[in-house]
Amino acid sequence: MKKFVLALAAGAAMAWSVASAGAQDMIVEKKVFELPSLTTIGGKTIKGVKVGYETYGTLNADKSNAILVAHFFSGTSHAAGKYDASDKAAGYWDYLIGPGKAVDTNKYFVIASDTLVNLNTGDPKVTTTGPASINPDTGKPYGTAFPLVTIGDFVRVQKALVDSFGVTKLHAVMGASMGGLQTYEWAATYPDMVQRIIPVIAAAEPGPWLQAWLGVWAAPVLVDPNWNNGDYYGKTAPKAGLAQALKIVSLHANHWLWAEKTFGSAWADEAKNPLDAFDNKYKVEAALDAGGAARAAISDANHYLYLIKANQTFIAGAGAGAKTAAEGIKRIKAKTLMLYAPTDQVFHADSVKAGAAAIKANGVEVETAEIAGNFGHLNGVLAMQPHAAKIAEFLSK
Amino acid sequence: MKKFVLALAAGAAMAWSVASAGAQDMIVEKKVFELPSLTTIGGKTIKGVKVGYETYGTLNADKSNAILVAHFFSGTSHAAGKYDASDKAAGYWDYLIGPGKAVDTNKYFVIASDTLVNLNTGDPKVTTTGPASINPDTGKPYGTAFPLVTIGDFVRVQKALVDSFGVTKLHAVMGASMGGLQTYEWAATYPDMVQRIIPVIAAAEPGPWLQAWLGVWAAPVLVDPNWNNGDYYGKTAPKAGLAQALKIVSLHANHWLWAEKTFGSAWADEAKNPLDAFDNKYKVEAALDAGGAARAAISDANHYLYLIKANQTFIAGAGAGAKTAAEGIKRIKAKTLMLYAPTDQVFHADSVKAGAAAIKANGVEVETAEIAGNFGHLNGVLAMQPHAAKIAEFLSK
Repeated sequence: MKKFVLALAAGAAMAWSVASAGAQDMIVEKKVFELPSLTTIGGKTIKGVKVGYETYGTLNADKSNAILVAHFFSGTSHAAGKYDASDKAAGYWDYLIGPGKAVDTNKYFVIASDTLVNLNTGDPKVTTTGPASINPDTGKPYGTAFPLVTIGDFVRVQKALVDSFGVTKLHAVMGASMGGLQTYEWAATYPDMVQRIIPVIAAAEPGPWLQAWLGVWAAPVLVDPNWNNGDYYGKTAPKAGLAQALKIVSLHANHWLWAEKTFGSAWADEAKNPLDAFDNKYKVEAALDAGGAARAAISDANHYLYLIKANQTFIAGAGAGAKTAAEGIKRIKAKTLMLYAPTDQVFHADSVKAGAAAIKANGVEVETAEIAGNFGHLNGVLAMQPHAAKIAEFLSK
Repeated sequence: MKKFVLALAAGAAMAWSVASAGAQDMIVEKKVFELPSLTTIGGKTIKGVKVGYETYGTLNADKSNAILVAHFFSGTSHAAGKYDASDKAAGYWDYLIGPGKAVDTNKYFVIASDTLVNLNTGDPKVTTTGPASINPDTGKPYGTAFPLVTIGDFVRVQKALVDSFGVTKLHAVMGASMGGLQTYEWAATYPDMVQRIIPVIAAAEPGPWLQAWLGVWAAPVLVDPNWNNGDYYGKTAPKAGLAQALKIVSLHANHWLWAEKTFGSAWADEAKNPLDAFDNKYKVEAALDAGGAARAAISDANHYLYLIKANQTFIAGAGAGAKTAAEGIKRIKAKTLMLYAPTDQVFHADSVKAGAAAIKANGVEVETAEIAGNFGHLNGVLAMQPHAAKIAEFLSK
């Protein structure tokens, strides 16, 4: 069950249990960054943007040791450490980020920030701005009046956060999945600012297959009558649809090896044969249902749909005016370490390798490495430990 | 667009367009088989069972040349031929079945039958018995009072159909996907009756990964309030949920190569940038939505959920009392030709190969072959032409 919780949790920091327990926990603090006004790439204005962030390590005197970590679709800025030594779980990449670890916080100053329209609006540690936020002009939640935003807008907010530290060069930008898209966007939009990138389990463009799958992820929310075209604040939220939707995400991001090794075809209840009644489930189904419901309880359906749209419409370098991925990728100068999972069904390996080839065509140094493991796409979150030394070495070059 | 229609259609006979046009069309007729009473494997009685079927070729004098073809999840008994020379499309495996083709109807007598709880209740050529059928005891549709059935029950009905021809040995049983499961069931439950099997894109057991995915397929229907726990006959049917659900099936059964080659990231409407509004879609999304809606229009939501349950609970040899797949597979004696697609995401290649190895362990001759193509799982329906000679040879041995 532990592996299952890990795999499903993807982002619900409370459920992570990869952290090593004990005396060496890095204790971290959530902070909030405020941007009085953001102009989106689409030309809209969002007032009073707030996002949560965490930092690990110390910014050096010449401000040259900053590494930005961007989070995945269902993730948060809690990339490492614990808020309190008694926390059951640490941040999702705690095994990679910390004193003496691959991203060594004795050397580097790590900044991890929440995105706009972050999914986890019900997590007290998450601060984000999106449809569930109060529109300062009306005093009510924006709902679908919130402008559509994309990955480039997430990065615009991060840029302002990085600027606020006086950092003008980033030692590196890294992230998994949607965090990898933000990584591409950083390198394409601010090529002179970003020295290294580590995009993990992310292609340089979503492509039609993932665009279609993201549409599938949205489906159960759109069918839930409580979604009500996004107008549900102060009413009943579409949690049933969102729970089913997040179940799809969990399964799509995982792999049959996980299902076979974790559950087999065991029944959810030994006394209830799935053959005998509709509601008699297999263990894997019951676990996915429970995971989806737990995630839905702390998530917002509109934020979810906005995230889907942001990923579908991703174009690297959009923040610098690129109209196609090819155009954006041509701008990238950062040394690149790209990690992908051959069993990934979200960003399939060929799509990731195409991004590597495109960056290499710029004359830039590109290394790639395969992530093994039983978790499909989620290998990039859960199974990166064997690549710790490679990451450390890449960062030191 | 043609390839897309092909791929999406999977089972909506009207939309198939693989048939060669012209003078050589085999003209076929839909018939109806009636079974006064069926006792299900679960011990329930269903009165007045009716299923549609088609036959191609002529049964020989000693009744030794019959081949049964079982259909896939969303398919029907229209495996080959046209009802009328003016039909736009022929049956789904018309390129394999017919005079002089791989399954040569000059030699063999082919029987193709609709299953119980067939999806396509709104197709005038389909006859099936399921929740949407009239319960003779009440004069009203069964709804969820219809007993849960599984693949073994589909095969029990087929067995009665085959018996009705006086056939005591089947030259072969074949089918793709759920048709492959029925093929396994035939060989495991009636080992002395089945001489050859050709299971295509089907494993010997669904396993937890597919069991979980089948649960995902169900999700949008369950969220649609019009589903109303299956009680919607004479009311508004849950077509919105079913359309979204069938969209998931279409995508899951396909492959990124199809999406990339057919659509790229083109917009559904050249004038409507997906970045500008929620409803502005990519072409691949619009096509999947249209396909899902078209399929939903002729499909029944309860039948869909019953089919899902039947596939989740499949155990080869259940009709002969097998309690596990391993137990059932041990009963198989039929020479086996097994075809699978390395890019299949429904029945992944490793699961199919495990079935082949298990049958081989019985001391039975087993051949396997890989199906290439851009359609993932659907390669087993759409891209079998290169294996026509192999099938012909296997059938003649």
